[in-house]
Amino acid sequence: MLSKNDIKEIKALEQKKFRSANGLFVAEGHKLVNELLDVFECVLAAATPEWDRFGSKIPAARFEPVTPDELKRASLLQNPQDVLAVFRIPDHQCQFSTAATGNLVLALDDIQDPGNLGTIVRIADWFGIRDIFCSKGTADIYNPKSVQATMGAIARVRLHYIDLKKELESLKGNIPIYGTFLDGENIYSKDLSANGVIIMGNEGNGISQAIEQTVTDKLLIPAWPTGAKTSESLNVAVATAIICAEFRRRN
Amino acid sequence: MLSKNDIKEIKALEQKKFRSANGLFVAEGHKLVNELLDVFECVLAAATPEWDRFGSKIPAARFEPVTPDELKRASLLQNPQDVLAVFRIPDHQCQFSTAATGNLVLALDDIQDPGNLGTIVRIADWFGIRDIFCSKGTADIYNPKSVQATMGAIARVRLHYIDLKKELESLKGNIPIYGTFLDGENIYSKDLSANGVIIMGNEGNGISQAIEQTVTDKLLIPAWPTGAKTSESLNVAVATAIICAEFRRRN
Repeated sequence: MLSKNDIKEIKALEQKKFRSANGLFVAEGHKLVNELLDVFECVLAAATPEWDRFGSKIPAARFEPVTPDELKRASLLQNPQDVLAVFRIPDHQCQFSTAATGNLVLALDDIQDPGNLGTIVRIADWFGIRDIFCSKGTADIYNPKSVQATMGAIARVRLHYIDLKKELESLKGNIPIYGTFLDGENIYSKDLSANGVIIMGNEGNGISQAIEQTVTDKLLIPAWPTGAKTSESLNVAVATAIICAEFRRRN
Repeated sequence: MLSKNDIKEIKALEQKKFRSANGLFVAEGHKLVNELLDVFECVLAAATPEWDRFGSKIPAARFEPVTPDELKRASLLQNPQDVLAVFRIPDHQCQFSTAATGNLVLALDDIQDPGNLGTIVRIADWFGIRDIFCSKGTADIYNPKSVQATMGAIARVRLHYIDLKKELESLKGNIPIYGTFLDGENIYSKDLSANGVIIMGNEGNGISQAIEQTVTDKLLIPAWPTGAKTSESLNVAVATAIICAEFRRRN
């Protein structure tokens, strides 16, 4: 059973200030929770009798059986699932330059939409990108909407919130830094490396001027046919997917 | 000024039964509305004084100046913009076989999420796909969430709701029919044609068994590196984008 106080504390984790203060986040649904149990420390889990069907790796000491009604009161989702778990936010240590020298990494310049952010993490997971470096203005990956949108990929991809401009400036000259621009070169006729940084920009404004100055290779995803009237741009998660797919196809 | 009745009628268009009964849909925001004015018949438009800044192609007889508060009462969005317009749903006539013989087309097998549907329309627009054939169980493109997610691409891409299984069966043997499956062949080592049908499946269940039987070429988007533990699948709009980009890169 969950106490009134438990429910209040879970609900508070919808807000970033409480997530930061407590170092905790919420995930819901059996598939997602099971994937995160392999990787993150579980502080509390509440599940309905339904949950048993799927087996559970939740430490017994932290498990609260609940009714569907109780779970509904605690849930941050519109349609509550069979389990809700509270996890400790991990402290990933990672050097930007080391990560970007050895592999491709993503850099996110003020991505605003929690759903887009979660989808980008899922794409990174699919294409073997293990580290994502985010500007401080990027949405919080521990927002419940982002966590849910990762569909569990957050168990395998690390996000780092950094001073993106400063860190990119310190890389410049040593490592290729790619960004997508309407005046970039056709990605299909460019050389693409097996390491480096791919920057994705804000949904409305693209890559900011300050970050653009650190880009060494400007890319364009060509519309088809060339010159036809079309949408001004692609959704940022969609563009991320096309770019990552092409880098991995080559290498 | 909008009457109480105007507002009631606009609000009703959030529901499919009222959209179908009246043959009308709602779009909001100056960029989207301006794009749709080129193509669809505008029945009513309401805009705040802000709107003037962007110029307007709205027929004067159907234009209602409103205050931001009035617009807020009529709006179907959480964050109302400067203009809201009601358009007539077009009656697109298009033969599946003719469209799929001459160009690539998309077929959607019960896509549920209005946002995914709108994003897929935007992707189709970018890659010069002019017709999308939807199963009757697919979300309605005139749902306000879908309309907004197209970002105006709905002005250039036609959607047709049909008996998808029956129509695909009648094509089989004459036209390549592609679908994405976990046991498909690597898309990067397959021949891809410049015409035919690309089927995208439901978010949870993928392509249904009945539709799968019509597929002539099963494709796989390979994860990277091969064999690593990764997400089970990609978001359907993301997969659509990677596939369309690869078809257009080849041809």
